[in-house]
Amino acid sequence: RVDGQRLWEALMTLAKIGATPKGGNCRLALTEEDRAGRELVTGWLEAAGLTLRVDQIGNIFARRAGRNNALPPIATGSHIDTQPTGGKFDGCYGVLAGLEVMRVLQERGIETEAPLEVVIWTNEEGSRFVPVMMGSGVHAGLIPLEKALAATDRDGDSVAASLERTGYAGDVPVGSHEFGAYFEAHIEQGPVLEQEAITIGAVTGSLGLHWFDVVVSGQEAHAGPTPMPYRRDALKTACALVSDILTLADDYQPNGRVTCGEFNVHPNSRNVIPGQVRFSVDLRHLEPAVLAEMHARLKALCLKHHAANQSDKQRVEVELIEVQHIPPTPFAPALIEMVRGASRHLGLSFRDMETGAGHDAVQIAGINPVAMIFVPCEDGISHNESENAEPEDLEDGANVLLLAMLERAGV
Amino acid sequence: RVDGQRLWEALMTLAKIGATPKGGNCRLALTEEDRAGRELVTGWLEAAGLTLRVDQIGNIFARRAGRNNALPPIATGSHIDTQPTGGKFDGCYGVLAGLEVMRVLQERGIETEAPLEVVIWTNEEGSRFVPVMMGSGVHAGLIPLEKALAATDRDGDSVAASLERTGYAGDVPVGSHEFGAYFEAHIEQGPVLEQEAITIGAVTGSLGLHWFDVVVSGQEAHAGPTPMPYRRDALKTACALVSDILTLADDYQPNGRVTCGEFNVHPNSRNVIPGQVRFSVDLRHLEPAVLAEMHARLKALCLKHHAANQSDKQRVEVELIEVQHIPPTPFAPALIEMVRGASRHLGLSFRDMETGAGHDAVQIAGINPVAMIFVPCEDGISHNESENAEPEDLEDGANVLLLAMLERAGV
Ligand SMILES: NC(=O)NCCC(=O)O
Ligand SMILES: NC(=O)NCCC(=O)O
Repeated sequence: RVDGQRLWEALMTLAKIGATPKGGNCRLALTEEDRAGRELVTGWLEAAGLTLRVDQIGNIFARRAGRNNALPPIATGSHIDTQPTGGKFDGCYGVLAGLEVMRVLQERGIETEAPLEVVIWTNEEGSRFVPVMMGSGVHAGLIPLEKALAATDRDGDSVAASLERTGYAGDVPVGSHEFGAYFEAHIEQGPVLEQEAITIGAVTGSLGLHWFDVVVSGQEAHAGPTPMPYRRDALKTACALVSDILTLADDYQPNGRVTCGEFNVHPNSRNVIPGQVRFSVDLRHLEPAVLAEMHARLKALCLKHHAANQSDKQRVEVELIEVQHIPPTPFAPALIEMVRGASRHLGLSFRDMETGAGHDAVQIAGINPVAMIFVPCEDGISHNESENAEPEDLEDGANVLLLAMLERAGV
Repeated sequence: RVDGQRLWEALMTLAKIGATPKGGNCRLALTEEDRAGRELVTGWLEAAGLTLRVDQIGNIFARRAGRNNALPPIATGSHIDTQPTGGKFDGCYGVLAGLEVMRVLQERGIETEAPLEVVIWTNEEGSRFVPVMMGSGVHAGLIPLEKALAATDRDGDSVAASLERTGYAGDVPVGSHEFGAYFEAHIEQGPVLEQEAITIGAVTGSLGLHWFDVVVSGQEAHAGPTPMPYRRDALKTACALVSDILTLADDYQPNGRVTCGEFNVHPNSRNVIPGQVRFSVDLRHLEPAVLAEMHARLKALCLKHHAANQSDKQRVEVELIEVQHIPPTPFAPALIEMVRGASRHLGLSFRDMETGAGHDAVQIAGINPVAMIFVPCEDGISHNESENAEPEDLEDGANVLLLAMLERAGV
């Protein structure tokens, strides 16, 4: 069994690096804070007897030798970068649950057949650099290394330069080894487990994700002197379109998700009719065919609102731009069953569920068998400084991870 | 007759101060750019034989003596501060048309019975400091001097400190003199004159203006894992509410205006359900009773959308906050008739119209007789770097100003 108290203390110690006034964390990928976080955690991993390697995109692999080191390692991990106003658990829990498992095995002198690995993936959040889930995506061959290294933040600073600066430009070629299995523990980031009072989510796969920008273009003009019939009001069209887009979700319950999260108005002044609105659309569904249908209907809505606004005096244009696409991804049945089995063995309540959020595990699922272990988080809230979780739930999740990894690696 | 070429050159010279890359102007109130603009224009006014006085809120009064200096001056003017992405004509035209009138009178050695005055009002735009139309509002006794001096910009810099820094903290007590009449020339800032091919708008009064903020509060959560029935999506409610609010205008045509110009989403991230939206509402109408009715219906819409979202899992709150109110303001019939008469005399096409925008003249109308002279602007566009006007129209408007001022002052 893991030491829940020690796991909690590790989480709270890491959370001191890049702490925000409202109790959250700002530890953007490959910043000085991220570097300091990596130093702290890799120090702990080495003290637990693991050997470190860093690849060309800065992913850190910490290995614990097994009896048969020719076997591919049984891995776990996640990320320690955060959103600008992120929480203490998203990502960090997965990495530090892995650390806690290694600490217990070391204390008890337990040997495994296959080697074990704890991985810290680079830039999962995608806040500073896009695409999101970058390190795991490069490792899995889904994102070209050159593209990732060339990505820049808002100030023009690149991933390549940030890796050099923080000392995490490793020399291990990306994708140079595979896993026998990859388990990732994570807070649910949704309300289901908490509301149903269930401790463990056995994640069976991830919703597909399709990201877009919609640009609505009219013409800015003065709010006072411009008569209503002469207005090319981009906000008016954008609001009607957002209402229609969000309503799409009604036809795809319970597995469909439609979100407009970013919404920017130009010039955004009290007495100026908006000339342009740019907003994001995030479509998610478990079934590829349904996600494609949602995309088709989104396109049709944009065309409809474009066509409805072609009278010359009130002309408004609507443009749909594709941003990113990650197809629905099923996880490995054998590993999912190990998560269920470990929960049963520990007497914990559990249920199957999908992950609506993307995770490093989703990228790895393209090349190796994966499963995820979800634990409840307070009010289902994440990507928020108030993100919170119960120490007992975190301990239970880490115990499930311990048992599943041992079962897979062989004792 | 005025010299249209000289007027145009003055406009283009002033537009060099705070010029923006896209051909507009950024000369925010009481900044270094505004100071430089004031130095340039007051130099011209003094060279035209006028005497300067500056009051405690930085309004500049440039006087040309008459035969009977016991009479209250016949004044004209406007402002030279601009929006952050403003144009070359809004405000500047009114001040420089006044300058051009003074230059012509000086050249021709024309004396008037009453003295004349050109006024540069402080902070009309309200971009850096609220309330808008500050200098004229303080002069007219509608805004307390202390309140205006204490207003701060986003960096906490106050009007009082900015007046000291720019050297425009004058010693003339505010509101210490009245005008026999106040004429203000301005670009229309709307499309009516251009579309009807009419040169002069004889402004009969201003629409009333009622400004609000609406705050829609839900709860931010992750776009992926949060099922639709658990979402407290502030953007969804805000978009439905904006659609309803803008539709209100249909019942108040042709004189009603409804605009949502500012719209800010928090945290504004692609994969986060918006937790809060704050947007502005700008209601305008010519009749006080109708404006009050529009306000009542706005309140009812906010209450309706608040009440419609009280189910616990999807709770969203709507709050309506009053920001500013300027009642509809009729101008002085005798002065309006002088504008019509001057246009007729000059053989210019003209029509009566209201101003939908607030102007310094609207504040002055509370204490002295005022009228305004509108000229067309390209595509009716203002508060925009592409703001433009025809030199001939600007010249025609300045000639109307010349004749109206002379008629009122007596030659
Ligand atoms: N876990 C997580 O928040 N990933 C970000 C990508 C997403 O939006 O699902
Ligand atoms: N002239 C002008 O743009 N004034 C600003 C106040 C308003 O919104 O009407």
